[in-house]
Amino acid sequence: MNIRDIITEDCLEQLFSQANLGLEKEGHRVILDAEKPLLATSTHPNNLGDRSYHPYIQTDFAESQLELITPAVKTEKELYRILQTINEVTLRALDSEEYIWPISIPPELPKEESIKIVQLKDKKQKQYRQYLSEKYGKHKQLLSGIHYNFSFTDSFLLKIAESSDTSLTETKNDLYMKVARQFLRYQWLLVYLYGCTPYIDEKYFDYINKYEVCKIDEKPTLPVRSLRVSKYGYVNEGKIQISFNSLEEYVANIENYVANKDLIEEKEFYSAVRLKGSSNAREFLEKGIQYLELRIFDINPFSPTGIALSDIRFIHLFTMLMSWLDETNPNESAEVGKAKNELVALSHPLQQTEYLDEGKWLFTQMLEMSKILGLPEEDIEIIKEKQLALHSPELTLAGQIYKHCNSWEEFQKFTAKITKEQKEAALEKPYQLTAFSHMELSTQALISDAIQHGIEVEILDESDQFVKLTYKDHVEYVKNGNMTSKDTYISPLIMDNKVVTKIVLEEQGFNVPKSVQCSNLQEAKNIYRQVKNKAVVIKPKSTNFGLGITIFSNPTYSETDFIKAVEIALKEDKEIMIEDYLVGEEYRFFVLGNDTKAVLSRVPANITGNGINTIKELVNIKNEDSLRGDGLSSPLKKIALGELEKLHLKTQGYDENTIPDKGEKIFLRANSNISTGGDSIDFTDKAHESYKNVAAKIANALQAKICGVDLIIPDINKPLNHENSYGVVEANYNPMMMMHIFPYQGKSRRLTTHILEFLYPEKDWDYIH
Amino acid sequence: MNIRDIITEDCLEQLFSQANLGLEKEGHRVILDAEKPLLATSTHPNNLGDRSYHPYIQTDFAESQLELITPAVKTEKELYRILQTINEVTLRALDSEEYIWPISIPPELPKEESIKIVQLKDKKQKQYRQYLSEKYGKHKQLLSGIHYNFSFTDSFLLKIAESSDTSLTETKNDLYMKVARQFLRYQWLLVYLYGCTPYIDEKYFDYINKYEVCKIDEKPTLPVRSLRVSKYGYVNEGKIQISFNSLEEYVANIENYVANKDLIEEKEFYSAVRLKGSSNAREFLEKGIQYLELRIFDINPFSPTGIALSDIRFIHLFTMLMSWLDETNPNESAEVGKAKNELVALSHPLQQTEYLDEGKWLFTQMLEMSKILGLPEEDIEIIKEKQLALHSPELTLAGQIYKHCNSWEEFQKFTAKITKEQKEAALEKPYQLTAFSHMELSTQALISDAIQHGIEVEILDESDQFVKLTYKDHVEYVKNGNMTSKDTYISPLIMDNKVVTKIVLEEQGFNVPKSVQCSNLQEAKNIYRQVKNKAVVIKPKSTNFGLGITIFSNPTYSETDFIKAVEIALKEDKEIMIEDYLVGEEYRFFVLGNDTKAVLSRVPANITGNGINTIKELVNIKNEDSLRGDGLSSPLKKIALGELEKLHLKTQGYDENTIPDKGEKIFLRANSNISTGGDSIDFTDKAHESYKNVAAKIANALQAKICGVDLIIPDINKPLNHENSYGVVEANYNPMMMMHIFPYQGKSRRLTTHILEFLYPEKDWDYIH
Repeated sequence: MNIRDIITEDCLEQLFSQANLGLEKEGHRVILDAEKPLLATSTHPNNLGDRSYHPYIQTDFAESQLELITPAVKTEKELYRILQTINEVTLRALDSEEYIWPISIPPELPKEESIKIVQLKDKKQKQYRQYLSEKYGKHKQLLSGIHYNFSFTDSFLLKIAESSDTSLTETKNDLYMKVARQFLRYQWLLVYLYGCTPYIDEKYFDYINKYEVCKIDEKPTLPVRSLRVSKYGYVNEGKIQISFNSLEEYVANIENYVANKDLIEEKEFYSAVRLKGSSNAREFLEKGIQYLELRIFDINPFSPTGIALSDIRFIHLFTMLMSWLDETNPNESAEVGKAKNELVALSHPLQQTEYLDEGKWLFTQMLEMSKILGLPEEDIEIIKEKQLALHSPELTLAGQIYKHCNSWEEFQKFTAKITKEQKEAALEKPYQLTAFSHMELSTQALISDAIQHGIEVEILDESDQFVKLTYKDHVEYVKNGNMTSKDTYISPLIMDNKVVTKIVLEEQGFNVPKSVQCSNLQEAKNIYRQVKNKAVVIKPKSTNFGLGITIFSNPTYSETDFIKAVEIALKEDKEIMIEDYLVGEEYRFFVLGNDTKAVLSRVPANITGNGINTIKELVNIKNEDSLRGDGLSSPLKKIALGELEKLHLKTQGYDENTIPDKGEKIFLRANSNISTGGDSIDFTDKAHESYKNVAAKIANALQAKICGVDLIIPDINKPLNHENSYGVVEANYNPMMMMHIFPYQGKSRRLTTHILEFLYPEKDWDYIH
Repeated sequence: MNIRDIITEDCLEQLFSQANLGLEKEGHRVILDAEKPLLATSTHPNNLGDRSYHPYIQTDFAESQLELITPAVKTEKELYRILQTINEVTLRALDSEEYIWPISIPPELPKEESIKIVQLKDKKQKQYRQYLSEKYGKHKQLLSGIHYNFSFTDSFLLKIAESSDTSLTETKNDLYMKVARQFLRYQWLLVYLYGCTPYIDEKYFDYINKYEVCKIDEKPTLPVRSLRVSKYGYVNEGKIQISFNSLEEYVANIENYVANKDLIEEKEFYSAVRLKGSSNAREFLEKGIQYLELRIFDINPFSPTGIALSDIRFIHLFTMLMSWLDETNPNESAEVGKAKNELVALSHPLQQTEYLDEGKWLFTQMLEMSKILGLPEEDIEIIKEKQLALHSPELTLAGQIYKHCNSWEEFQKFTAKITKEQKEAALEKPYQLTAFSHMELSTQALISDAIQHGIEVEILDESDQFVKLTYKDHVEYVKNGNMTSKDTYISPLIMDNKVVTKIVLEEQGFNVPKSVQCSNLQEAKNIYRQVKNKAVVIKPKSTNFGLGITIFSNPTYSETDFIKAVEIALKEDKEIMIEDYLVGEEYRFFVLGNDTKAVLSRVPANITGNGINTIKELVNIKNEDSLRGDGLSSPLKKIALGELEKLHLKTQGYDENTIPDKGEKIFLRANSNISTGGDSIDFTDKAHESYKNVAAKIANALQAKICGVDLIIPDINKPLNHENSYGVVEANYNPMMMMHIFPYQGKSRRLTTHILEFLYPEKDWDYIH
């Protein structure tokens, strides 16, 4: 029974459509300020952590050759998003003058001796690269590409094994060998569509000809579709012929070449499709092939990730088709396919393909399959779009490049422009991840840092900001950026209850403003007699938006005023508090573990005059700052000019058309919240150590490890003592981080990195300090 | 300047009214099933933990003589509640045949040699008691009483020190010595009001006369007001005369008696008022007196705590008055007061007091003080009530006893009756603490256990169920009975999110019912093809009260029925889940640390027929169980007979007037919630170990230490294997405990004790296992 029949009879359409997908994308770090783009000569960026372990960002052959690696995920959309994110994070982590070159052809061909092989610690890895450079020359190794990893789900394979009455291993090996053969057979179509290495510096051919195994007499006529997948690209010497007819033959062949030292290791076999999932081929016979690596994809400069989302989907559909179609001459697949591939790869980008009929047939089959499987309309559209390109070579990737570039120099210039644009786009909103921009900014920052520093991150629930982090065997779950296993459950519960917080802090000797509760005017009169010479705040027990609050900062208030204030507060709640008024400025201390990591002052929405513009104009100018937006997808909020702001101006004798004097600072709100346009100003270095210590101790008293402590301090520059003391306003779990990471003024404090360091103390973090 | 003037001029009325108050109440464990009440001969109850450390429950002189100790608290109400609670907890912890004798006179006077001195480990304590028994005889030591501890607040004392320009130590010593003298001077009034030891077995006088220091020639004529505070009671030999004129004199005197061995230690000085706060008197000179211990109070049998709330308040007001009044002849206070006291103590309970005029004057002064301080109306009422008793001796405690009892035998019998009633009252609702009955039951159980096992408990926020526990230096905060520092913050957040919970459990290999999400009918049709031979549950993603759920427990449903169920679910939510249906019964596993501590099955509201009563009558009978109530202040809920129950009966062909056959079990609801009248049935011993292990591992996977895991299991008696597996329904943080502690059927599992053991592993818990 063929696979099509099993799928339709057993209703496996959905399972067949599911897959595990992964991508690896190479790309050189380059410098663009010279006359021509150059490979970066710097070492791999230090701030990306340890590349020998890094799950996302490694290096391939050359020191400048970044390799971005995605985990295996279940959908194309996820795959695209994660690659996009790794790419964005890498771009942001690079030195300001470095970029990532977005095509497969290197930007330049330096002399052999100037090409730096990657500086890995692992001796074997180093030797292998040395061997490659001596056998094939370094220039060939500079070509970059995209590898596409594909496997069916275990559920699907189990069902197939059951229905065809074979073992799971056999099922896997049969199915993946079939896909491999068919892929080899029909790969030409993908090269036709996605080939994107039309030009190269002509020196290239001289360079590679120096090496015996790479020697080719004639040079190709450029442009072509894909130099990289042609015989001029990343291929083994001609004598290496490994059969895909059966897994047994494959294993025998490859082992033979290794035994004869034609290949130093099995992985030196550069097939368009590679069998994956074990350290050596023989293991497949017992354990089964785990997945296929499809290696023929040139980097697409038009997509910021090097491959478009719709193309990821099309390749998946193509792979499904390879398993879906019956094989005609399996024994000839590899050879026939290779020949067709060579021809297509070396054709002019605008030349109609020689295999139009076969292409037409493939598309008909693909549409037929889609219909039977009940695939969604979007898939049909993607297939039809590519079908169009089959008939119109100018719609293929190489065709499009040819439209812009008539020579290597033009291609080089064109690419340099795109290179710059891609980095500029990544830096435009450094506080956002394009693929996850609807999540909370703090979680975006945490995801970004995890990727940068090589901690695996899995998003468990996007709308709930729930992520799983893994470093080696150590798993941590994080919600909302800093709710973690490091805090105990009781700690946020203590902070949630202002009464309990106060008792706990008071019992441990911290300065909590004293307060008396009061529920009627008779009590209030008694209380007045006690507090009458003290500055006090009168407020409802449960405060809402500051309603019903009176502040007597001057202790000379009368009994009548006091009672009036009590009446106002009693309108809002049946219990009110009469609390000592604390003199000073309020600061937020971000405590992590036993340390204060950041100190911040929040200043109410304001503008400073220049003697020329009106308040309205000054607000607009200030709002142009890219950090200002809606306050949710931006670290700061645009200042509004609504009723409240206008009223606040009016009480000061201004309106929006007033032109303030040069240097005159005018406040538009009384409250200092960032969410109403306030400024965040970093004070971490200015704050006296004594307050940082007190804040950390307060967090500790509340059993909190990650805590935002709000203190009122008369003078933060002077040490804490009897005259210059402090008062605790409140303590917050899940404290805001973005205002510290992207303050309006002062130094950025990358708290999300500190959170990761706190969660994973066993990891080496020296490089960030 | 006198203290009254400072208080009024500095507006210290409120501060003066504040105090730190504490009580110690002694009382013998007794046996009532003999002809006459007897002292219990058993050792101190094992289940009360280590009495040498216990903050609440200790023993005084005799092994049977319990001493209940409150912490220092700020209000009379708090004080009363905590004493009431300690008393209730102790009564419940006693063996079923033991009681607490609620008067100061022991129930019997055994022979000297049969009286067991407490079995303490501490050698010095033992020797001291041995010394006392040899000097005063054991019988005198059997008298029990109440000690009332009093101090002003530090804030008040600081203000007084400031205004009178003296040191804090001097202020304390001056003030407390004044209060002590005045208390001695006017104590007769309290003895008149509260004396309550009118009778004793006449043998008593013979017993005490055997001891030189206790020898008194004549016997008193009983009844009297208070034998205990008279010369027949707990007093030193006549020659011990210690001056209270000044602290210096006091120190010199007491040191002299100790030096001469007239007192073996300073604490052998049995004054009506004792200076407290240091290990020896000399220390007071430097550090100041910390508080006063007022020792003249007989136990009041009419109050379950041995002292009424209004009396606690009155004594506080009396003590305030003692500091408020000017002293007339301080040097004579102690002597004059002692003489008056003796006369009042040995008067007949109904005799008008000789000191009526002084009494009248004291009440006038007290009312005057109350007015100046602006004390509340309730205080005035309490004072006036006692004022009435001054004029009517039948209203005093001794007067009231005399109304009921004309001899020691009658007093003994009367007391035995009260003794029984008090224990019965304590056992009526064993799941409640009378003083904290409005709090959550689980927190009441935890408070109860903490007190029983000697862990200090402070209620930080009653309405928020927030308590602080302290054992030696180890502090833990607990909310809602089991939210603690032992769980990490992320763990409840994981459990709060069903999607994340599922991912985490699935990734770690637990049996989570597989589910597919679906948002439209087209998808549903595809899904039907996959699931059509499986039992499934179709439900809205966010379930509310079970709306929109369809269960296909039989896998032979048609596509039409399937689609209809999807439509119903889609009405409730735009995303629905199609989940594998799990076959079996649902059980709740209560996991603590790495162990399952309890397993429970919840059965829908039901009755079992007896062939005689109607369903309605059977429901009423079942509802009489004292465990059933509103389900909030009771562990189980009364079964309702509302619309839903009647409908459920109707679908089975019954109505409320049906008379079910004998043994016929009829369900009144489909759902098994305890909150709708369901039964809780303990399965802890019946459940196979394998499920208990799995539940603990599930909790562990969710990083939870205290967790309720709901599993569906086909047969809980058989071991877990491929055929007899399980499915995780959900995991709950802050899991219910009362249903395990007070199950409808099966053994009680005292989880709150386990929680304490888990929080304080360093404490000895061997005695509970």
